[in-house]
Amino acid sequence: MSKKKWRWGILSTANIGRTRFIPALQSIPDVEVVAVASRNLQKAEAFASECGIAEAYGSYQELMEHPDIDILYNPTPNYLHVSLSIKALEYGKHVLCEKPISVTARELDQLVQAQQQYPLTRVMEGFMYRFHPQWRYIHELIQDKKIGKITHIHAIFTYFNDDPADVRNQDNLGGGALLDIGCYCVDVAKMIFNGSPKSIQSYVEYDPIFSTDRLTTALLEFKEGIATLVCSTQTFSFQQVYIHGTKGRIEVNIPFNSASDEEPRSIRIVTKEGVLKKTFDQINAYVLMAQAMQQAIEKKHPLPITLQDSMETMAIIDRLLYPKNNGFGSYTP
Amino acid sequence: MSKKKWRWGILSTANIGRTRFIPALQSIPDVEVVAVASRNLQKAEAFASECGIAEAYGSYQELMEHPDIDILYNPTPNYLHVSLSIKALEYGKHVLCEKPISVTARELDQLVQAQQQYPLTRVMEGFMYRFHPQWRYIHELIQDKKIGKITHIHAIFTYFNDDPADVRNQDNLGGGALLDIGCYCVDVAKMIFNGSPKSIQSYVEYDPIFSTDRLTTALLEFKEGIATLVCSTQTFSFQQVYIHGTKGRIEVNIPFNSASDEEPRSIRIVTKEGVLKKTFDQINAYVLMAQAMQQAIEKKHPLPITLQDSMETMAIIDRLLYPKNNGFGSYTP
Repeated sequence: MSKKKWRWGILSTANIGRTRFIPALQSIPDVEVVAVASRNLQKAEAFASECGIAEAYGSYQELMEHPDIDILYNPTPNYLHVSLSIKALEYGKHVLCEKPISVTARELDQLVQAQQQYPLTRVMEGFMYRFHPQWRYIHELIQDKKIGKITHIHAIFTYFNDDPADVRNQDNLGGGALLDIGCYCVDVAKMIFNGSPKSIQSYVEYDPIFSTDRLTTALLEFKEGIATLVCSTQTFSFQQVYIHGTKGRIEVNIPFNSASDEEPRSIRIVTKEGVLKKTFDQINAYVLMAQAMQQAIEKKHPLPITLQDSMETMAIIDRLLYPKNNGFGSYTP
Repeated sequence: MSKKKWRWGILSTANIGRTRFIPALQSIPDVEVVAVASRNLQKAEAFASECGIAEAYGSYQELMEHPDIDILYNPTPNYLHVSLSIKALEYGKHVLCEKPISVTARELDQLVQAQQQYPLTRVMEGFMYRFHPQWRYIHELIQDKKIGKITHIHAIFTYFNDDPADVRNQDNLGGGALLDIGCYCVDVAKMIFNGSPKSIQSYVEYDPIFSTDRLTTALLEFKEGIATLVCSTQTFSFQQVYIHGTKGRIEVNIPFNSASDEEPRSIRIVTKEGVLKKTFDQINAYVLMAQAMQQAIEKKHPLPITLQDSMETMAIIDRLLYPKNNGFGSYTP
């Protein structure tokens, strides 16, 4: 490890930063969380005081111009992800951007171009769930053919929230089930099947008032098998990934949530030999994500989640959300 | 109850009869299993001796002509279901036909017409799972809005069997995942949403050697919500139904199998109040099905599963299997 201290700035007073990411950063020895910016100075100051952050700013611009910050964490509402991430690159700052990295693939393309223009500063989508060691373990099980050939994956992520004031229920701010939580289901299917789908079918139900997708179901055909995906913002909370193979299955009970303050995770592997429950040490996936990003930047290695990865995920989400009315859409490239 | 003894005949020496249905029938006081017929007399005799059945015949025709039989149980390979059931009606015998009642909706139409021609003898598809009391309990939970409004159902049924000699892997005998086990997934979605889907999308993967569907996934859009269905004959054994609502979910762990010789069933109801596990007394759903059918015939009531029900299920299966090549099919009536 370098002797360098990584200096982070936080864009916005989003709850995910306060409860999850900032405490994770502050637990890393070579990290200093320098400053937070909000469009409202009082909010920024209160947030800084609560989170133990030294500096607070009343505009994002001041954070961009801050001379002593290496990386920005961008947990703003989805519709601001791309524009603020591009601005950060222009100001010479790396960006860890919350998922989804954009609202459409077309919009993400602007960020890809900015990344090419500013290759020394780097941007990564914050799919922190990928950094939990359970996935490396699952990957090894699959490689070792523990459950035979994978035939089908089922990924579901739901919660209930019909508050019209919530950004997640505001279509023009990048709300909706697919962008908020469905992106996890898409990403995990791509990760397990190690590629992009050959064809897609979906049923999307839009909320008649919010115009956001409140229930999206999809079939993705990959080279190796099929994924069924379900996400909903108006269904009782649930998240699960089932990986089905010819000789067994893996049940992932907390596939997506961070579990820093929860009980250690476990997965179940069911085969003819019986049920094997594998428990993992308590671990903070946000810490692992931040460290992995810092290390890739320092060593000039590829980032653990590339913009190409993110572009493939957004292209799928685009297809699922099109056409923008209740009903089915299907797509074969 | 009437004093009458119900006299049953068994078509074929199928394993499901030997292990499941005949023992169930023989446990009912007002039932007598009179005879079994096979296309091979030796097989019929050995089967009769093993199962404690008095008479054995070397042709189906002899059972049709038997003067003392009220009801035939038809567990022949799928491609024989309709022709033998029609024959039984012609010979004045009621028929309980194993699922799926036919191979296509078009074929089932012949049976519907025969039923109209011979209204005094009745035919019913043997979806025995429906008679387990857990479904009545689940229906009441749904009616009472215990889990709010139902938004999504996921039904999966899989097993692994790549034996080319098995009828379930023979396309011309009515094999394949959808007809063998997917019909349960379709039926349960129709039962819970209480209707037929408005539109259907599917991905069907055919076995390159058997030409049977070995993995079928589908999205069914009902008036009230969406069902995702998965069935496979080349995936590790699993069966589960999840019923998701706005305020909770119901997990049905053994939705389809008969559990006469298994531990009592239980379902889990998960809501904000926590997890409620409901356990049911050990019960034989085959017994309840046979009794319900006998009672409907005796009282001239509608059968618990109507041919209209069966026709709707077969129409969905038709659509799922069409087109008959790997890939997607979609359908809106």
